[in-house]
Amino acid sequence: MSHNTAVIWQNWHHLNNIMEGNYSKIILLTDTVVAKHCLGYFREKFRRNIDHVITIEAGEENKSMMSAASIWQELNLCKADRKSLLICLGGGMICDLGGFAASVYKRGIKTMYVPTTLLAMTDASIGGKTAIDFEGIKNLIGSFHLPDSIFIDTHFLATLPAAEWLNGYAEIIKHAIIADAELWNLLNPEHFRPTIISDDLLTRSINIKQSIVAVDPFEQTERKKLNFGHTAGHALEAYFFNKEKTLSHGQAVAAGMIIESYINMCSGKLSEKTYEQIRDFILKYFPAIGFKNEEIADVAELCKHDKKREFGTLTITKIIAIGLCEPDLLITEQQLKEGLEAYIRATS
Amino acid sequence: MSHNTAVIWQNWHHLNNIMEGNYSKIILLTDTVVAKHCLGYFREKFRRNIDHVITIEAGEENKSMMSAASIWQELNLCKADRKSLLICLGGGMICDLGGFAASVYKRGIKTMYVPTTLLAMTDASIGGKTAIDFEGIKNLIGSFHLPDSIFIDTHFLATLPAAEWLNGYAEIIKHAIIADAELWNLLNPEHFRPTIISDDLLTRSINIKQSIVAVDPFEQTERKKLNFGHTAGHALEAYFFNKEKTLSHGQAVAAGMIIESYINMCSGKLSEKTYEQIRDFILKYFPAIGFKNEEIADVAELCKHDKKREFGTLTITKIIAIGLCEPDLLITEQQLKEGLEAYIRATS
Repeated sequence: MSHNTAVIWQNWHHLNNIMEGNYSKIILLTDTVVAKHCLGYFREKFRRNIDHVITIEAGEENKSMMSAASIWQELNLCKADRKSLLICLGGGMICDLGGFAASVYKRGIKTMYVPTTLLAMTDASIGGKTAIDFEGIKNLIGSFHLPDSIFIDTHFLATLPAAEWLNGYAEIIKHAIIADAELWNLLNPEHFRPTIISDDLLTRSINIKQSIVAVDPFEQTERKKLNFGHTAGHALEAYFFNKEKTLSHGQAVAAGMIIESYINMCSGKLSEKTYEQIRDFILKYFPAIGFKNEEIADVAELCKHDKKREFGTLTITKIIAIGLCEPDLLITEQQLKEGLEAYIRATS
Repeated sequence: MSHNTAVIWQNWHHLNNIMEGNYSKIILLTDTVVAKHCLGYFREKFRRNIDHVITIEAGEENKSMMSAASIWQELNLCKADRKSLLICLGGGMICDLGGFAASVYKRGIKTMYVPTTLLAMTDASIGGKTAIDFEGIKNLIGSFHLPDSIFIDTHFLATLPAAEWLNGYAEIIKHAIIADAELWNLLNPEHFRPTIISDDLLTRSINIKQSIVAVDPFEQTERKKLNFGHTAGHALEAYFFNKEKTLSHGQAVAAGMIIESYINMCSGKLSEKTYEQIRDFILKYFPAIGFKNEEIADVAELCKHDKKREFGTLTITKIIAIGLCEPDLLITEQQLKEGLEAYIRATS
């Protein structure tokens, strides 16, 4: 990762200009759902020739090695070279998958992300993490590969289902809790509407992630803060993924933030009042995840696969107050189980 | 690639010391042939616990996505984390494959290469390029991922077949031609024995590659010099790979160096005398590759898949004299064909 990512805001004229002559070929990757809702608008605004369009079946289950292989086949067939650009038009799945495929094709070709969901705009497209799922484990295989540019146009959100908005808001809430008390106040329940987004809110959220990634691109220290809610959240997501029930990333992370805030409170780092504030705000918008006490052991077991684990230990973000945190709080499996129990109590 | 690789010379005591406590798990990757000839010696000298051994079937055809997937499965089964170390014990195939698998498992775990062939010692293990073959195309999928350390012990060469020595010598000859006239003199035909190697020769060769990679790790400029012989060589290798005939990497690169030297001579960059010197020296040790004039078009076609191609152009290293070169000489398909013809004339 030897360069920075340019974030371009809704300026199609500028986008078309920087495309001119910079790339030997332009290939666009999207999925079947995004192709239906967003590709027409994209083609209308994007004034450069697209050499080839690759369309993957929508759905997280296609963020797979087989999909990566089919992208490599198509890149190879259309003779993409190291100066070619892969445009990833879609949500987190397309950005993660396309970014991964591009990062290892001929040892790395350039990418541009055009996120079409709020989650992708505020999280997945920022920071250069790419991944595919493998053997039922989310993001087990991946790389760090910064896109050349990210193009944000909130017009794409017009067709977004309500549940998808919440996926994005979970990460925005996370950014507020770990780094920006003012953003938290903007999210104040009285004004909060999780189906609209102001440019100001989105910019603040993107800037938080970008500034954290800038100081620690490879997740040695600072960047670990961004994992708030994701240690418990990924385990829940993996648990339900294997069960073939439906649990969105946002629901999982929202629950994860409650669980990890509870553990922080018990470890004496976070006041009870702030914990309750976080819990109540999240539960107001994110429906409770239905899991039972007898499932806790299995969920905790899945944390052992967490990529963040080192030397067999388990860590979460240390939340000190809204807007203030530190990267590593070492916790035990027992503490995690108590957090999961507290979540069940709070939601039943 | 945010760190440097330590090259450790035959000092097992030092190696055992730096292993102590540095890694959460140690997993060793090797292939069936290397396991037979080298694993016993390695285990005798290596005094640290190896948590798991992964053995891949030997042969370039196993430098594949399926092998990478089976390594990911085994790393996952033995709960390797980001502080784990994958030791790659073997030739170029094991270093390339293991390096690639490790580079994307959990977005990158650490590797140590223990090259057991001369080719791997002087080339494949140095510089952080990893790869697998895909759809019959050599190294189509790969990454830049520097190993933590490379351990060189020429004891491993004791069981090396004569043909394998030549694979390594092709790269040593290349290093001499592109950067070191003194090394070229050390390789003088009168003293040259391609089944022994002095520490001095090996060190010089490794140092050339390391110093070139250090200034340009991602192959933007300087590093392209190392592709001397490889534009034509890779095409020949791919051609014979698809034909399922046998052509070693060393034979391909040796022929490639003759072909590319010829093109350099015709472009006025290299004297006829030096071209003949290079040609005659190489042909003394590397048996002629049997291909015919009517196969030239197919070989040239395969150059279009070269990873080095950008904007559809074809480049080779510009050789000015022994020990002196520049990265990019733009050539036409016609010039490449003339080079291939010249090789056929010189060897028939």
